[in-house]
Amino acid sequence: MEPIKIGLCGLGTVAQGTLEVLRRNQSEIERRVGSPVKVTCAGVRTDKPDVDLSGIRVERDMLAVATAADVDIVVELIGGTDLALKLVMAAIEAGKGVVTANKALIAIHGNEIFAAAQARGVMVAFEAAVAGGIPIIKAIREGLSANRIQWLAGIINGTGNFILTEMSEKGRAFDEVLAEAQALGYAEADPTFDVEGIDAAHKLTILASIAFGVPLQFDACYTEGIGALTPADVANADQLGYKIKHLGVAKRTGGGIELRVHPTLMPKNRLLSNVNGVLNALQVQGDAVGPTTYTGPGAGGEPTASAVVADIVDVARTLTADPLNRVPHLAFHADALGGEPILSIDQIHSAYYLRLQVADTPGVLSQITKRLGDHAISIESIVQKQVQDPHDSVPVVLLTGVVKEADMNAALAEIEALESVLEPAVKIRVESLV
Amino acid sequence: MEPIKIGLCGLGTVAQGTLEVLRRNQSEIERRVGSPVKVTCAGVRTDKPDVDLSGIRVERDMLAVATAADVDIVVELIGGTDLALKLVMAAIEAGKGVVTANKALIAIHGNEIFAAAQARGVMVAFEAAVAGGIPIIKAIREGLSANRIQWLAGIINGTGNFILTEMSEKGRAFDEVLAEAQALGYAEADPTFDVEGIDAAHKLTILASIAFGVPLQFDACYTEGIGALTPADVANADQLGYKIKHLGVAKRTGGGIELRVHPTLMPKNRLLSNVNGVLNALQVQGDAVGPTTYTGPGAGGEPTASAVVADIVDVARTLTADPLNRVPHLAFHADALGGEPILSIDQIHSAYYLRLQVADTPGVLSQITKRLGDHAISIESIVQKQVQDPHDSVPVVLLTGVVKEADMNAALAEIEALESVLEPAVKIRVESLV
Repeated sequence: MEPIKIGLCGLGTVAQGTLEVLRRNQSEIERRVGSPVKVTCAGVRTDKPDVDLSGIRVERDMLAVATAADVDIVVELIGGTDLALKLVMAAIEAGKGVVTANKALIAIHGNEIFAAAQARGVMVAFEAAVAGGIPIIKAIREGLSANRIQWLAGIINGTGNFILTEMSEKGRAFDEVLAEAQALGYAEADPTFDVEGIDAAHKLTILASIAFGVPLQFDACYTEGIGALTPADVANADQLGYKIKHLGVAKRTGGGIELRVHPTLMPKNRLLSNVNGVLNALQVQGDAVGPTTYTGPGAGGEPTASAVVADIVDVARTLTADPLNRVPHLAFHADALGGEPILSIDQIHSAYYLRLQVADTPGVLSQITKRLGDHAISIESIVQKQVQDPHDSVPVVLLTGVVKEADMNAALAEIEALESVLEPAVKIRVESLV
Repeated sequence: MEPIKIGLCGLGTVAQGTLEVLRRNQSEIERRVGSPVKVTCAGVRTDKPDVDLSGIRVERDMLAVATAADVDIVVELIGGTDLALKLVMAAIEAGKGVVTANKALIAIHGNEIFAAAQARGVMVAFEAAVAGGIPIIKAIREGLSANRIQWLAGIINGTGNFILTEMSEKGRAFDEVLAEAQALGYAEADPTFDVEGIDAAHKLTILASIAFGVPLQFDACYTEGIGALTPADVANADQLGYKIKHLGVAKRTGGGIELRVHPTLMPKNRLLSNVNGVLNALQVQGDAVGPTTYTGPGAGGEPTASAVVADIVDVARTLTADPLNRVPHLAFHADALGGEPILSIDQIHSAYYLRLQVADTPGVLSQITKRLGDHAISIESIVQKQVQDPHDSVPVVLLTGVVKEADMNAALAEIEALESVLEPAVKIRVESLV
């Protein structure tokens, strides 16, 4: 049979993994696809002498790969959102299938890209953009297509989860663990995207679109990092029976869609609470199936290449399908995407962990609980820590019931205005999941 | 658009769930498929007055549904392997797409069914046959298509897992928990298929085929139930740091494929060890992705219907695809299925938990360990239980290293022949997974 001809753009970790997997599993993949899959052309800006490109034509100009006659499917693994966007749009224009692992590109420019792909009748596949080797896009978009998805929640940044696991298991401080993660190669030299939650927000934006059938809206995603978490909060959570995880949460409510990335307390016995280290995990709640959970390596060369190559196989298979009968890019047909708004963070509903530093004087607890009561916020538990010196200030830790965040913020403003409350409150959202 | 017309055969729990999901999520599903999906015809042998079939033509003769002009896709939910086989073959012959939840049918007659479907150019989808609502067929067959799958292991019978969870958490006896499971409706009046592992063996047979690209070989699957497990073994496992789960294991080795369902000790900190109650979970090890794990409801009306309806959507989409470019039924093209043999149980390799009832006399341990040593079986740990009366017999519990089962059996035959060994040995396989 005619081979499926791949133009591979980029030569980083994932691209190298893709080359390796396509070579090592060549016969296994051909037995699945029915044709050989062959990298004919590589878009490479800077040579890497240790990467074997024998038998592959090398292009210095990425955009030339997009229009090359010996390429059926363009695989974009260069990263970034400038040249990558130009490359993908040029490949679509040239009628090529596209596979990308670029979460930022899809989260920010996906609507434009999919509109062009649909108009040109080609497929753009992006399984590798979310949760590395876990086939979560396929699971939600196809495996759960019978369901009205109610919510999904996940640990979708391995670096952040590694840091939180170390903080939780060893009582270590954030800065110290981050430095180790950088030394181990888990975190980039500039760790902003990982620890501030931007990487997770890119992924969550994509997941929410395919789960709920709404356009990609990265700008509407609330994003809060893990840099402010202290060992004290991790220890308090532990004593209360919770773990702290950096969670992406997308939830359908009557008023709109909650879309948020932030540190989250979860009861210890939940599946996601026990996902440690650099693993990723997603839980998806469908109205028919109930909860299903997907766990695996969320990053790394070969795990991500696993998703890239699976997408190559999928795109190769759709080449002869009537475009109308293909799986829609965002799970729902483009003309049937919904208009449910993304809620701002003060409109979401959540339970909360609060830590307040207060003067050790009589009546302070009743002042605090009164302000919460005034805003109809129930208290699930309250712990006043003991201190050695009776004149010291003391921390008070509370778990509240579920309330609208705007109401919580209003109550906290009043509480922080109390004379006996000495520092701004620490507020962490709590999710029980299932 | 023209509706996709469904002929629904059977009116049990899963069929009722399918009707309900197709009705409740009608608009959500149409937004995904691009056309309405409508049950036009129902094959019903016995009326159920509480099931609303308004607007649906009722056929008493199942085989008439297979050839009905107002049916595009036949959904087989009648169970069994006689009429179900006739129905599916008649539907294929009539050029209809087929969706089935029938694990026994696929495990036993799948090769014949898929050959006929391929010859006729139609799709037979069976996601609902394994692990209910977890899209595990799709994950392995498409999501992990880049990988050479090395092994998979799973808890794929919810009834058995419910029984083992109760035995483990509450120290209860098998018979007592089984009676409760029957009262709760988890176990059938005849629980043979569940507790003897036949149901799990049907599912494992299917998973092994799509993972390794070999024909379905249900007869070659080794099957051992959980009925002989005692609270003593569950407690011993717990003390050693293990849980006992009823596991299906399919593993590629140099000599062939291990395919086996049996009680298994697993270290407590493994993901699968913490899957409790009626949940199902599968772990799949691919050479590129590493381990991925899939957890969710493995049975029940709507969870299984979730998979049935997802299959309907998939089959509807392939109606216009070139059959050569569809996902092959068993993941690999029919002419590329492999010939790796399924190993008999005495050819597998495993670690073992052994419990021996021995006379409380000096030298008995050295007699036992000598026989193990003679067969090159290493001992990881050994515990001799204390008894009150020095003249009583005592249990000895051992964990061994990995050895070929034939060698273990030979050593055990010699050990059981010792005068100081009073009862046949209890032998349970141990898997560490990842």
